[in-house]
Amino acid sequence: MRPLTVQKYGGTSVGSVERIAAVAERVAARAAKERMIVVVSAMAGETDRLLKLARALSPEPDPRECDVVAASGEQVTAALLSIALAERGVPAQSFLGHQVRISTDSAHGKARIQSIDGERISRALDEGRVAVVAGFQGVDERGSITTLGRGGSDTSAVAVAAAVKADSCEILTDVDGVYTTDPRVCPQARKLERISHDEMLELASLGSKVLQIRSVEFAKRYGVRVHVRSSFNDSEGTWVVPEESTMEDVLVTGIAHDKDQAKITIKGVPDRPGLAARIFGPIAAANIIVDVILQNTGEDGTTDVTFTVPRGELAAALRIVDEIRRDTGAKEVLSDSTIAKVSIVGLGMRSHAGVAASIFEALAREGINIQMISTSEIKVSVVIDEKYVELAVRALHAALVERGEGAHPS
Amino acid sequence: MRPLTVQKYGGTSVGSVERIAAVAERVAARAAKERMIVVVSAMAGETDRLLKLARALSPEPDPRECDVVAASGEQVTAALLSIALAERGVPAQSFLGHQVRISTDSAHGKARIQSIDGERISRALDEGRVAVVAGFQGVDERGSITTLGRGGSDTSAVAVAAAVKADSCEILTDVDGVYTTDPRVCPQARKLERISHDEMLELASLGSKVLQIRSVEFAKRYGVRVHVRSSFNDSEGTWVVPEESTMEDVLVTGIAHDKDQAKITIKGVPDRPGLAARIFGPIAAANIIVDVILQNTGEDGTTDVTFTVPRGELAAALRIVDEIRRDTGAKEVLSDSTIAKVSIVGLGMRSHAGVAASIFEALAREGINIQMISTSEIKVSVVIDEKYVELAVRALHAALVERGEGAHPS
Repeated sequence: MRPLTVQKYGGTSVGSVERIAAVAERVAARAAKERMIVVVSAMAGETDRLLKLARALSPEPDPRECDVVAASGEQVTAALLSIALAERGVPAQSFLGHQVRISTDSAHGKARIQSIDGERISRALDEGRVAVVAGFQGVDERGSITTLGRGGSDTSAVAVAAAVKADSCEILTDVDGVYTTDPRVCPQARKLERISHDEMLELASLGSKVLQIRSVEFAKRYGVRVHVRSSFNDSEGTWVVPEESTMEDVLVTGIAHDKDQAKITIKGVPDRPGLAARIFGPIAAANIIVDVILQNTGEDGTTDVTFTVPRGELAAALRIVDEIRRDTGAKEVLSDSTIAKVSIVGLGMRSHAGVAASIFEALAREGINIQMISTSEIKVSVVIDEKYVELAVRALHAALVERGEGAHPS
Repeated sequence: MRPLTVQKYGGTSVGSVERIAAVAERVAARAAKERMIVVVSAMAGETDRLLKLARALSPEPDPRECDVVAASGEQVTAALLSIALAERGVPAQSFLGHQVRISTDSAHGKARIQSIDGERISRALDEGRVAVVAGFQGVDERGSITTLGRGGSDTSAVAVAAAVKADSCEILTDVDGVYTTDPRVCPQARKLERISHDEMLELASLGSKVLQIRSVEFAKRYGVRVHVRSSFNDSEGTWVVPEESTMEDVLVTGIAHDKDQAKITIKGVPDRPGLAARIFGPIAAANIIVDVILQNTGEDGTTDVTFTVPRGELAAALRIVDEIRRDTGAKEVLSDSTIAKVSIVGLGMRSHAGVAASIFEALAREGINIQMISTSEIKVSVVIDEKYVELAVRALHAALVERGEGAHPS
């Protein structure tokens, strides 16, 4: 049987009728040899325009109804692309979330896909049609329209690919793949041919520019091979794939950085059981995402707790922390919003010692002080002064990616 | 139980967020005392904008996909109105065609409603919500989105009213009711308080400005009382209702005119069985709607056939008729595109003789020659020279409507 391919085109790629026609040309060429499912986003700017109408009517518009408004954007694109394909002699049929059917929970605006029925799409494919699926949307058990959150069309594509057991899932976007690091910071950055799902998840801040992180979780769970590539040319992009045995040979796959960080330190907190819950409970309740956490126990029965939050949440977090300080009798609260986080990711770390040491050495050579360190199985993150972040990325890239290429660790 | 009302707002009434907010105010006031279902059209201009995108991609866009594109317009309005109602403390829930569910045949772009399941709407009403229904759309048995044709939201409203057994169905529009004739032609025209479904159907050209004719068929079949009124004030409009016994007391209810007519005469056709089918078969096949037909059998075994078609179709019709002339050996074909049709409608005609005579007298007094006459049980239509149409309408209105007011026929 001919191979079965899922392609996903983002809002920029379908941002005008001219671009939709260009996508149709591209899909038509592939449809001659492959069975094709195409997942589309709303035309660029359309979702914002629609939600602006909703907010003009209510400062906090009803989430269920916002989803009905927003989902219309992908609905229009799916039908328009089907029309453009038919015009080129390629039979096509649009599918909305409830028609597929893509079942989600009822968390409007950020719903999670629970299951996909691939039956109707498969039937359309068997009839020789291209199936054009409206991304970003699903339907809950009550039959209400739901949406999957920004970038949700990526997840739609991966989930559909899993449901119909597609041979591959292509995410067509305005970049040509996943890079070892941000090329704007480090000119030596190079496009990765392959990266494992786990590495992609850890490189969230690199990856989220090209792929919604939830779609990678989905791809990992169902073993979907995702091909991130440019919608403007036919070059190979980056394959995000299940882990392969040779992948551990590469120590460091990518380096991500994140300047959107601020640091809070609570000094001299009386160290009692339940202290962490006392601090991080109220912060979580305020929907503030805490990233790196560090706790040092001192000798006088007190402890220092340091953690990072998104920079825009610093003020809100400080208000909560100040209350905690009063309640616990902590000595003082310090904060710093001029920090950045650099994350070094690679499957090879799992089996090879010495990667962390190489990281610290590379930073020390440049005189960069490490303020915090956090490690996971395949990632080392360091928090440093914001002004050194580009220097750190370049130094780490040179020491661990460029040098590591081809050369296997001892 | 509180009365159950269906209201339908057209595209102009929901043409901007400000107007949607005004509709929400109006609905909210009613919802305090009544159970409300609101059917909405797309924001004015939106359907045209969407279909223009479709036509930019294909001169004859796939009808199924056009419906997916077009239906998004009502989808957005329904959700926006629900948001505006919630903002005013009135719980509301939007319903799309497939959610209601409004089942139709598969004639995309002009689908006919086959059945409506009022269950989900009733449940929302029982929960104290306003149900906001996207007009114009339904779903066929395959689950594809269908649309009901221009003005289809009127039919949606009447059909929903029938399904839930609403106490009344209000069509809110930019005119304040149905008039005895076109007020631009005849200043004496007055708003009707009541009109029967049958009369409304016969006054299509008067009525279609305020009410899609198919919605009247629906209202007649299910006995729905339709209240056509202004969306800009609270004045009573015109009730379109099942026939009441006193209605026959009024000889003439309304006078419609239609200038979009042209006349074709085929002279000297050899008169054989099946002639009418031979002529009107090919014309119907070309989707040209023939209105008045007149046939006079001569004495030499030939006959003259005269009929009217929409003016824009005259050229196409003449091409077909010319072929028929050659095939049948008819003598000649004449045509005239400067004619108009005036229709005089009233339930009273059914039981009272002499109405036709009064019509002919009124026209004769003004020296207006009648070219064709066609009658039904409650309507007399005359075809006259276009230049006399305003004069004819005023003369007939004076003779049959103004004089008839209050005065019962002998």
